[in-house]
Amino acid sequence: MISLTDAYHTVAAIIPLYVAMILGYISVRFLNLLNPDQCSGINKFVAKFSIPLLSFEVISKCNPYKLNMRLICADVLQKIIALIGVVVITRVRSNVNLKWIITGVSLSTLPNTLIVGIPLLKAVYGEEAQVLLAQIVELQSLIWYNLSLFLLELSTARDVHTMQPATTAAVQEEPEDRRQAARRGTDEIRETISSVPRRTNITAVLSTVGKKLLTNPNFDATVVGLAWAFIHFGCDVKLPKVVEDSVSIMSDGGLGMAMYSLGLFMASQDRIVACGTRLALLAMFLRFVVGPAIMAGPSFAIGLKGAPFQIAVLQAALPQGIVPFVFAKEYNVHPEILSTGIIIGLLVALPVALVYYLLLRL
Amino acid sequence: MISLTDAYHTVAAIIPLYVAMILGYISVRFLNLLNPDQCSGINKFVAKFSIPLLSFEVISKCNPYKLNMRLICADVLQKIIALIGVVVITRVRSNVNLKWIITGVSLSTLPNTLIVGIPLLKAVYGEEAQVLLAQIVELQSLIWYNLSLFLLELSTARDVHTMQPATTAAVQEEPEDRRQAARRGTDEIRETISSVPRRTNITAVLSTVGKKLLTNPNFDATVVGLAWAFIHFGCDVKLPKVVEDSVSIMSDGGLGMAMYSLGLFMASQDRIVACGTRLALLAMFLRFVVGPAIMAGPSFAIGLKGAPFQIAVLQAALPQGIVPFVFAKEYNVHPEILSTGIIIGLLVALPVALVYYLLLRL
Repeated sequence: MISLTDAYHTVAAIIPLYVAMILGYISVRFLNLLNPDQCSGINKFVAKFSIPLLSFEVISKCNPYKLNMRLICADVLQKIIALIGVVVITRVRSNVNLKWIITGVSLSTLPNTLIVGIPLLKAVYGEEAQVLLAQIVELQSLIWYNLSLFLLELSTARDVHTMQPATTAAVQEEPEDRRQAARRGTDEIRETISSVPRRTNITAVLSTVGKKLLTNPNFDATVVGLAWAFIHFGCDVKLPKVVEDSVSIMSDGGLGMAMYSLGLFMASQDRIVACGTRLALLAMFLRFVVGPAIMAGPSFAIGLKGAPFQIAVLQAALPQGIVPFVFAKEYNVHPEILSTGIIIGLLVALPVALVYYLLLRL
Repeated sequence: MISLTDAYHTVAAIIPLYVAMILGYISVRFLNLLNPDQCSGINKFVAKFSIPLLSFEVISKCNPYKLNMRLICADVLQKIIALIGVVVITRVRSNVNLKWIITGVSLSTLPNTLIVGIPLLKAVYGEEAQVLLAQIVELQSLIWYNLSLFLLELSTARDVHTMQPATTAAVQEEPEDRRQAARRGTDEIRETISSVPRRTNITAVLSTVGKKLLTNPNFDATVVGLAWAFIHFGCDVKLPKVVEDSVSIMSDGGLGMAMYSLGLFMASQDRIVACGTRLALLAMFLRFVVGPAIMAGPSFAIGLKGAPFQIAVLQAALPQGIVPFVFAKEYNVHPEILSTGIIIGLLVALPVALVYYLLLRL
């Protein structure tokens, strides 16, 4: 059974995060300290400095020669299962839509590992949790975020072309195909329209995603952190103390600033449940039931056991991650559902973690 | 002589501060990351959270039952000497003016102890420096800042009355004094005008200053920190870890954020020397020569020796403090001179500290 000390440690580790978040919320809602533009100044600081430097610190301290391959495989399988599942369900309900697929996969597989996950799970499982979660963070910023950026960019490109079907169709179709085309059903034409530009514009989409990647400080920090980890653990070279201190003077406050900025975010939303009760319940189901379940399955099948298995499942039940929301907002792809996932997720994070912790210990 | 290790430690301790500051400068000047309103959001966060919590941390860790009374006396004497000196000089030059007095005293006696002083001197002298500087910080936020606030409020009150002499004079003067008043010279009238309202408005000024104090988060943090230090060191009570962590999650980044915000400040100034070369040289002379000299004199006379003596003198040669500048800007009392003291001070802080360090070791 769970010991009282364990419980206290977990609560004591998570409360400071919530204090920072509540301060952010109060600053806007009750103190009127910051107007929206001033909030966005703080959010920019967090996005451009605090979070990338925090990523760098976590990733550069994780030995890339000793990765837990079972965990990584389980994480990859979780994403594949989620993608297939969401595609099948949307196809059954006959509204296959890239936007719903992206939202569904984000909700079920992209939790807030860096800011909420590491402090919370480190409090229960110690350093081991940090080492394992660092690998999840690496996969997130190197693969999953970029893949969802790619899909979002793709859905935008398709939208653009769907909005001008006549022109596109005329340009793409050869004269000898015209009579044949006339006999096609409306659905088939739509399919052609959206698939032809997809094929021709894939390089444009990739180039846009590539440009966004290279100018994304978090991606850069992850790459540099990983490169440094390879050098550090491979050649036993250490960063000079002055460089280490220069990073940590900016990243030290990263956690607090990130939570504060989450509080600003909560205060900036008009409603906690911005997407309606039905969608909110679905989002919660994906985040807290489906996500952990499709992580637990592969983890068990692959042979993860003990603490690593528990950590793998618990991290899948964390509040919704921020980056997918930022993307969703940028591309206007159901941001209100993801924001609900973040806010409700943060509000119920502790009881949810406790329930899973108890279930896993049974 | 100074050892190479000492020199490296000092430089290694100060460089991260400058990295944070340069990042702030670059964010505005080269990356166009933040507009002025967004900068002010970050500055507000620093002023309302980072700095007060940093003050709290430093002050609550300093044993108030073991204050260094010699250092405190020397600090008080330094301020008295500065005040007398500035008053005498302005009187000799026949332009006694409260505004010049406040600016002169700020420049010669109010350095940046909390943000620049503690990390720099801790690197050379270890924990002892932090303990001594914490006492200087306490005096600054409990007495000196409030005294300068009082003087600024007083100068504003006097200005207001000087600007409406006719009305004020009419209200204050009794009928039988009128004929006498008519015979007075213009200068004498002015003197009466400015001294009468001063006497009558002293309670109004005190009440304004009091209100400002109570809503100043740095003053509050100092009082709470000191109160807690009395309880902690007196009754051997410790803060629960969760409270300590809640403070440190917000204050951890305090130093970095404060330096970053100094960088934003530097970037927001049109010119490094905003006040003209002559005044800038005078400001530098007050900050780096007069300040340390009038600290060294009393410290020596009172019997401070060894490291405490060196720390006392070195801290007096730090860059100009931020709070006096914030006040100066609020009351429009030569802010351009203090900003020059901050910027040039930061640029030459290391060589100045090195020169004093070598002089003191001779």
